[in-house]
Amino acid sequence: MNENEFLGALRRLPLHPGARGLTDDVALVDPYVVTADALVEGVHFLPTDPAADVGWKLAAVNLSDLAAKGAVPEGMVLAYPLRDADWDRGFLEGLGEALAAYSCPLIGGDTVSLPRGAPRILSATLLGRDAAAPPRAGARTGDALWVTGTLGDAGAGLAVARGEAGPAELLAAYRRPRPRLAEGRRLGPRATAMCDVSDGLLIDAGRMAAAAGLSVTVALDALPLSAPYRAFRGETQAARLAAATAGDDYELLFALPPGETPPVDAARVGRFAAGSGLTLFDGGEALPPPGRLGWLHGG
Amino acid sequence: MNENEFLGALRRLPLHPGARGLTDDVALVDPYVVTADALVEGVHFLPTDPAADVGWKLAAVNLSDLAAKGAVPEGMVLAYPLRDADWDRGFLEGLGEALAAYSCPLIGGDTVSLPRGAPRILSATLLGRDAAAPPRAGARTGDALWVTGTLGDAGAGLAVARGEAGPAELLAAYRRPRPRLAEGRRLGPRATAMCDVSDGLLIDAGRMAAAAGLSVTVALDALPLSAPYRAFRGETQAARLAAATAGDDYELLFALPPGETPPVDAARVGRFAAGSGLTLFDGGEALPPPGRLGWLHGG
Repeated sequence: MNENEFLGALRRLPLHPGARGLTDDVALVDPYVVTADALVEGVHFLPTDPAADVGWKLAAVNLSDLAAKGAVPEGMVLAYPLRDADWDRGFLEGLGEALAAYSCPLIGGDTVSLPRGAPRILSATLLGRDAAAPPRAGARTGDALWVTGTLGDAGAGLAVARGEAGPAELLAAYRRPRPRLAEGRRLGPRATAMCDVSDGLLIDAGRMAAAAGLSVTVALDALPLSAPYRAFRGETQAARLAAATAGDDYELLFALPPGETPPVDAARVGRFAAGSGLTLFDGGEALPPPGRLGWLHGG
Repeated sequence: MNENEFLGALRRLPLHPGARGLTDDVALVDPYVVTADALVEGVHFLPTDPAADVGWKLAAVNLSDLAAKGAVPEGMVLAYPLRDADWDRGFLEGLGEALAAYSCPLIGGDTVSLPRGAPRILSATLLGRDAAAPPRAGARTGDALWVTGTLGDAGAGLAVARGEAGPAELLAAYRRPRPRLAEGRRLGPRATAMCDVSDGLLIDAGRMAAAAGLSVTVALDALPLSAPYRAFRGETQAARLAAATAGDDYELLFALPPGETPPVDAARVGRFAAGSGLTLFDGGEALPPPGRLGWLHGG
């Protein structure tokens, strides 16, 4: 059972009216938006990643879902498996730093003990308030596709974490992602659709188009790439494609009506049109879609 | 780091005003109560337990925390690790039965993939509404201690699940606990303090007393025991002690002012007084407290 099959089965359970058919990253439970994201050791983080960075990341990936709805964090519920005192302490230190940095208090949670050697599964549920909550499915024909920040840094940072020599900025992008809460607040009332880039720009853009019943074109040469990324991966089409599929970026991907410019720093990377599917361009030339659009967890 | 040390460290993080200092099983995030409970394979359930029963149980243990606050279920957020298609299907079947039985819709969640052979950690966050929310700490000197239903059945059922020959009712009590939502609704406005019996009557009664700054006496011979339990474990003091410490009962334990009788079926099992600590009586004679009061997860 992969993630999509499981989601299909979940949709046959009794659903909350705010669950939006489980098609979005958040649910609406008035007056809150609710999101949940879990990290699995060996899947979403490396056993060698510092515990404090994992604590930061668990908060950041969840806060990023609130950012994509333009919400203000209300608080976090944590489910935590105890296994090793030093690691637990480090985890709480990084978690606390992120919660303080983004003004997200702890609501509560549950701690459980873990059999020796079992991989950790860290999960959090976040509540946010005052959300404009642009849906994932709201894009319209002609809307432009925009993205904040730069792409690919975290994916390259994962290679650095695995032992490749590379810039510290990339490692930091992988280990300490910065959820775009301030940008999300400003974009929320303006964007016709918005999500965060967690699984990779192409897969997330494709999902946004599919949800809206539209097609989307993405211009690889318009992708915002950082100087450390260019130094590390080069200026090739392969480097651009890697940035578009690596995931873990936690930038905001959003649609705006044609002609509008966003109220935050962002790059225009594509456009929605009638039809379906994803078309890639690079330097004006259409490319065959890559075999792998990004991360498909649970597959 | 055991659960108590970890909780101490958690309390030094920024806390939500409704977190009640992380001293209760639920938090208040107006207009909701929020609770989270996780089940770990090999710790809270057996790898051989049927997947459907584990799905039921994950819902039931969380709904039980809502019952203890007199709340109506608003919905569940699920974090689910995919590992085996047949098991996943069974889990959803049992989960769906419990959600339907107690009118608790699914709000959303996250699915993740799990490394081969890793023990499952299943976690859920529940929101409830319209809660009278009697605190764990509200008992007063002279209040009587009451409990719904019968105790020890699930603990005995665990022995049956592990291979001992025993009545099917006990196995069902372990695998398909019934959260006392209807009773909780009626008790919520009346009880001065309330919690569910998840870790064992003695440990949960002791926590209730400690939270209120009081002592509590428990009369073992007043413990409500089912006929199948008596048939299985006998009528000895050891049998009563086992029922008071086994845990997993998910009955409601509550305090009422002296002289008041509860609006639901319940047994009076003890009394709060000034002082501190737990005193056990059986047939009018004081007993030394047992070495193990119940389940201390994470220890």
